[in-house]
Amino acid sequence: MGTRSGILVPNRKFNPTLKMPSLLIRSIIASLGLAFAALTPAKAEIHGGPEPITVAQLETAQQGWCDALLAISKIHHEGGDARALAEQIIDAAYNYEAAPVLFKPTLTHGEQTFRTTRQGALAYFVGGDADFPDDAGFALKPWASARFVNEGTYIEGNLGITMGHVILTDDAGKKTIVEKTWVFRRGDDGALRIVLHKSTIPFSPAS
Amino acid sequence: MGTRSGILVPNRKFNPTLKMPSLLIRSIIASLGLAFAALTPAKAEIHGGPEPITVAQLETAQQGWCDALLAISKIHHEGGDARALAEQIIDAAYNYEAAPVLFKPTLTHGEQTFRTTRQGALAYFVGGDADFPDDAGFALKPWASARFVNEGTYIEGNLGITMGHVILTDDAGKKTIVEKTWVFRRGDDGALRIVLHKSTIPFSPAS
Amino acid sequence: MGTRSGILVPNRKFNPTLKMPSLLIRSIIASLGLAFAALTPAKAEIHGGPEPITVAQLETAQQGWCDALLAISKIHHEGGDARALAEQIIDAAYNYEAAPVLFKPTLTHGEQTFRTTRQGALAYFVGGDADFPDDAGFALKPWASARFVNEGTYIEGNLGITMGHVILTDDAGKKTIVEKTWVFRRGDDGALRIVLHKSTIPFSPAS
Amino acid sequence: MGTRSGILVPNRKFNPTLKMPSLLIRSIIASLGLAFAALTPAKAEIHGGPEPITVAQLETAQQGWCDALLAISKIHHEGGDARALAEQIIDAAYNYEAAPVLFKPTLTHGEQTFRTTRQGALAYFVGGDADFPDDAGFALKPWASARFVNEGTYIEGNLGITMGHVILTDDAGKKTIVEKTWVFRRGDDGALRIVLHKSTIPFSPAS
Repeated sequence: MGTRSGILVPNRKFNPTLKMPSLLIRSIIASLGLAFAALTPAKAEIHGGPEPITVAQLETAQQGWCDALLAISKIHHEGGDARALAEQIIDAAYNYEAAPVLFKPTLTHGEQTFRTTRQGALAYFVGGDADFPDDAGFALKPWASARFVNEGTYIEGNLGITMGHVILTDDAGKKTIVEKTWVFRRGDDGALRIVLHKSTIPFSPAS
Repeated sequence: MGTRSGILVPNRKFNPTLKMPSLLIRSIIASLGLAFAALTPAKAEIHGGPEPITVAQLETAQQGWCDALLAISKIHHEGGDARALAEQIIDAAYNYEAAPVLFKPTLTHGEQTFRTTRQGALAYFVGGDADFPDDAGFALKPWASARFVNEGTYIEGNLGITMGHVILTDDAGKKTIVEKTWVFRRGDDGALRIVLHKSTIPFSPAS
Repeated sequence: MGTRSGILVPNRKFNPTLKMPSLLIRSIIASLGLAFAALTPAKAEIHGGPEPITVAQLETAQQGWCDALLAISKIHHEGGDARALAEQIIDAAYNYEAAPVLFKPTLTHGEQTFRTTRQGALAYFVGGDADFPDDAGFALKPWASARFVNEGTYIEGNLGITMGHVILTDDAGKKTIVEKTWVFRRGDDGALRIVLHKSTIPFSPAS
Repeated sequence: MGTRSGILVPNRKFNPTLKMPSLLIRSIIASLGLAFAALTPAKAEIHGGPEPITVAQLETAQQGWCDALLAISKIHHEGGDARALAEQIIDAAYNYEAAPVLFKPTLTHGEQTFRTTRQGALAYFVGGDADFPDDAGFALKPWASARFVNEGTYIEGNLGITMGHVILTDDAGKKTIVEKTWVFRRGDDGALRIVLHKSTIPFSPAS
């Protein structure tokens, strides 16, 4: 039965209203038999600061990644410049310009398991890099659909984390399911960029 | 008429939708004449992480401070233990347990302008501390009402900032208006505690 | 003698080593009579993420503001374009491009006390704006020196706060001391920009 | 030879000194032929706010996890209460009290792949839970040593991320290498707790 019995409800436990210090103060005051007026905001105010990351933004970024994979595959099979598109997408979606990215793609292994550089990411997606001889170009496969199924998310400050699956289907209808974790960073420009991406083949108890 | 002509609307400029990287990716994709399915969240997810601070929480904390000032005044004039109540309120509302607080009360001056310690804050509110001989106890005055009027707020990460006025009225109906800035910190327990509090008499051009 | 008796030492109380969960785990382990090897970092690692704000950076930003005030004054008295310089400095040092700034300058009052817009800030520094008729141009005074003296700072996440005094001296040797609080925000470009600035004349008990 | 040729040096690209706004201001000032005094901090200041997370803290927390695994194994094989120890360790090292944890252990699969609840984590480590029938108790194996080898880290705000391997050796000398990613959250108490943990068997191109 365990963790998956039934629909799981949102569960953000922080900031319980009863612990608000103003309410603590009111509790202290009430214990004295005193009472005060309700809060009546007095005038229009202006508000600034970065908007917090939302779950919807994480999901949109995840679907954007899925769509991008399909787009690279499609342009490749139509004879277009898959490498150029992959470069645009990596620059838009990954954080390589600002920091090394903790990227562990699905099919990498050995000394080249981790792709902390833009070069290593590009090689993984479109291949053709002599420095990464085992890379055939994951995005060049004939992908027909790609979608994510999240188990959960965690958002704090400038970072939003997802964990779940991505389900890929190729043009022959063959499904590939991977376990995938992303950490996105929201930049000053409002964009979410990937700072961590770990994709793995699910464990099979038979193996 | 400058900054105050008319009602000012909320103005949080960050995170413009058009800059979302997934939308950038979609724009790249669209420019190629490709199209993909809309986002359809696939299943119930669980979500974690501290809830972002809201303007309503800042305002509740501000009103809590105003109510607390009145409560200390009231208990004092009813012969109760104003010092004990002030201690409870300082511990609930200020961040002294975790860090020095950048507290500059309205009427302090000279060498004792800043009250970065709990002792200095308590002396200001209820007086009676030989180390702070000029403190008569600001909260012991016969306050009849206290309310805030914000000019604006700024929220980012664990900190929320307010700037505006607090309007105090004593039992003879005399009004005191101070300019007040707070920085509140949201703790892991969900409580907002004051890390900065600067209160000042408005500048008078005649003086 | 209260808060000012002697030199105050740095006081950042968070993150006490004894509370580290790994040490808690070691304590649990030790209580069982077990022992394990010391940490020996195994290989070169790469590290990413924005560098935390430092006190030195806050102080450099504060001195930058002081220098900028002097520069505007100097160029004005040499017949240069003080307005153009002030615009460059406001754009470099204040956060108006991203959000309203909670700016309460020293000499503002009444309906125009707060300068949440770039226009209001520029008017304060160099005057000459019909929308702000009381502004004579604070930076146009014949300032000869400007320096800050901090009482304390508070740094968390992308925000760094200072509280203390700024001491201005004009070309006749007359000193003006103001109480000043800044909140700086560190942007993705590494720059610190002002999101809150409150400057006030010290309270005088005689008045 | 790609990403792994030679020793990689630390690489935190944010906050480049040349972009400091105060330096921009100095550059503006210098371009006018003006010059100003160097920064001379004027007096002792007090500093508050949570200390930023360090790489050393992340590594200590990682080694703490490794030591804890060994401790559970050891107590089990000595006839002690492995379950009670595992509960203490989960409560100290994971963030379940505050939020669901995005935990994907090495050997889980199918409907019970993710262990977002404390119950699911405990079942994985020590087994014996009818709700998780495939769990034999990963920590009950006869582990003789455990150490981590990081590829890289990313730190921002309250979160610190690691990616790399963990190398386990059992009492027969057999090595198990897993790819492991952690996201730790620093709490107000200074403790680092796990908010995400993904552990996987390395991809084998032969399979």
